Amino acid sequence: MLLKLAFDGTDYHGFQVQNGQRTVCGVFQQVLWKLLGSSADIKGCSRTDRGVHATGFCLSFKTEKAFDLRKLPLALNSSLPEDIRVLKAMQVPEDFHARYSALGKEYVYRILNSHVDSPFERKYYYRVSEPLSRENMDIRAEYFMGAHDFSSFMASGSGITDRTRTVKYVSIARDGQLITFKIRADGFLYNMVRIMAGTLIEAGEEKIPPEEIKAIIEKRDRSCAGFTAPANGLFLTKVFYGFDF
Amino acid sequence: MLLKLAFDGTDYHGFQVQNGQRTVCGVFQQVLWKLLGSSADIKGCSRTDRGVHATGFCLSFKTEKAFDLRKLPLALNSSLPEDIRVLKAMQVPEDFHARYSALGKEYVYRILNSHVDSPFERKYYYRVSEPLSRENMDIRAEYFMGAHDFSSFMASGSGITDRTRTVKYVSIARDGQLITFKIRADGFLYNMVRIMAGTLIEAGEEKIPPEEIKAIIEKRDRSCAGFTAPANGLFLTKVFYGFDF
Repeated sequence: MLLKLAFDGTDYHGFQVQNGQRTVCGVFQQVLWKLLGSSADIKGCSRTDRGVHATGFCLSFKTEKAFDLRKLPLALNSSLPEDIRVLKAMQVPEDFHARYSALGKEYVYRILNSHVDSPFERKYYYRVSEPLSRENMDIRAEYFMGAHDFSSFMASGSGITDRTRTVKYVSIARDGQLITFKIRADGFLYNMVRIMAGTLIEAGEEKIPPEEIKAIIEKRDRSCAGFTAPANGLFLTKVFYGFDF
Repeated sequence: MLLKLAFDGTDYHGFQVQNGQRTVCGVFQQVLWKLLGSSADIKGCSRTDRGVHATGFCLSFKTEKAFDLRKLPLALNSSLPEDIRVLKAMQVPEDFHARYSALGKEYVYRILNSHVDSPFERKYYYRVSEPLSRENMDIRAEYFMGAHDFSSFMASGSGITDRTRTVKYVSIARDGQLITFKIRADGFLYNMVRIMAGTLIEAGEEKIPPEEIKAIIEKRDRSCAGFTAPANGLFLTKVFYGFDF
């Protein structure tokens, strides 16, 4: 079974189960297991950091039970806390795995460019007072396109050695004071989107000169890139499986 | 002095000061008075019901003090709770009154047309599971345009006798599952926008036949209109004073 979830990550230590911490999977599996009448191993499409949000998180698990695919989300939602919602369910083959079957993912990073916080969305963006140039950010974001070794955009301490990822699209949109950075890739290194967002913010503040992003990528050195933008601006928005879900 | 505020009305019993209740004005005036070093009489552009939100609420007060208009919002925001933000400040003549000087106001009512709540915005819309026809709502909203006696759209028990209001514009927009009803008028009767929203929802569910809105207005009878949609979908978005603010 494949499920799509939206969650407000504010009160969770990420998705993955961790001893002694409140996590999305920890809370979700209690509700699921009760409905199933037995435990089931839940595969998430991604770990996500503490405080990261999702509008299209996918998870899979195996079950012998036959569920009405329209009623299953409603049944789970009736027991889940309000900050986790199951959006839809789909039957998938036995060997399907929410993470390993994924062809790619899309993330969105939200920046509020304002002197004042919003009373409504304060948990869902990173605020920058300094005026940001959308055009500057846009030009620099284009350098992320295609296949690159993204070592400069990976948190230090990660043991992963193959650091080449292929970026399918990037975009910067501005709607009033809200700037949205959207990126799709076949995979993401640890903190990759948050470091990209931090680097683009510095570009928008004109702290990074025009052609510099290309050089930062080529140096394969985390210390060359910008700061790691905070978790609460980040949303996992889509997982791509090669079929419509 | 004229100020524009945004607030999340969830935890407030409306704007107006009430004994023993937490209100926006009650919380705001404590912060203002401390900054002024004395009390000041605050005039709000509107009472607002318990739970109603605002992105452009205006209030005025008299002060002898000279303030830097750019710093005043920051100074107030540093002491206000996060669910109330001062957006801007403007010097106005002595006889200015946030309510009586207003030429009109704009409200927005937000409807989420979905089987599932949003984990992010659940305090900021009214959710309707039944599929709503935006076109049906749009056609019916047009009947509100112009000057009418809106008795059918006023909560019973209000003592106001002149119930003619002039609607300058109405619109229904749909963005994914979110339906937004926007209306500007020279004034609003008690619960007017919420009853209009409730009536339009019933129109969208095809419970109200095509030409019916016209007849409902003409009957001047609250019992002919739809239900009063809940407070948490309603936003006071703009106040018009004849100058840019």
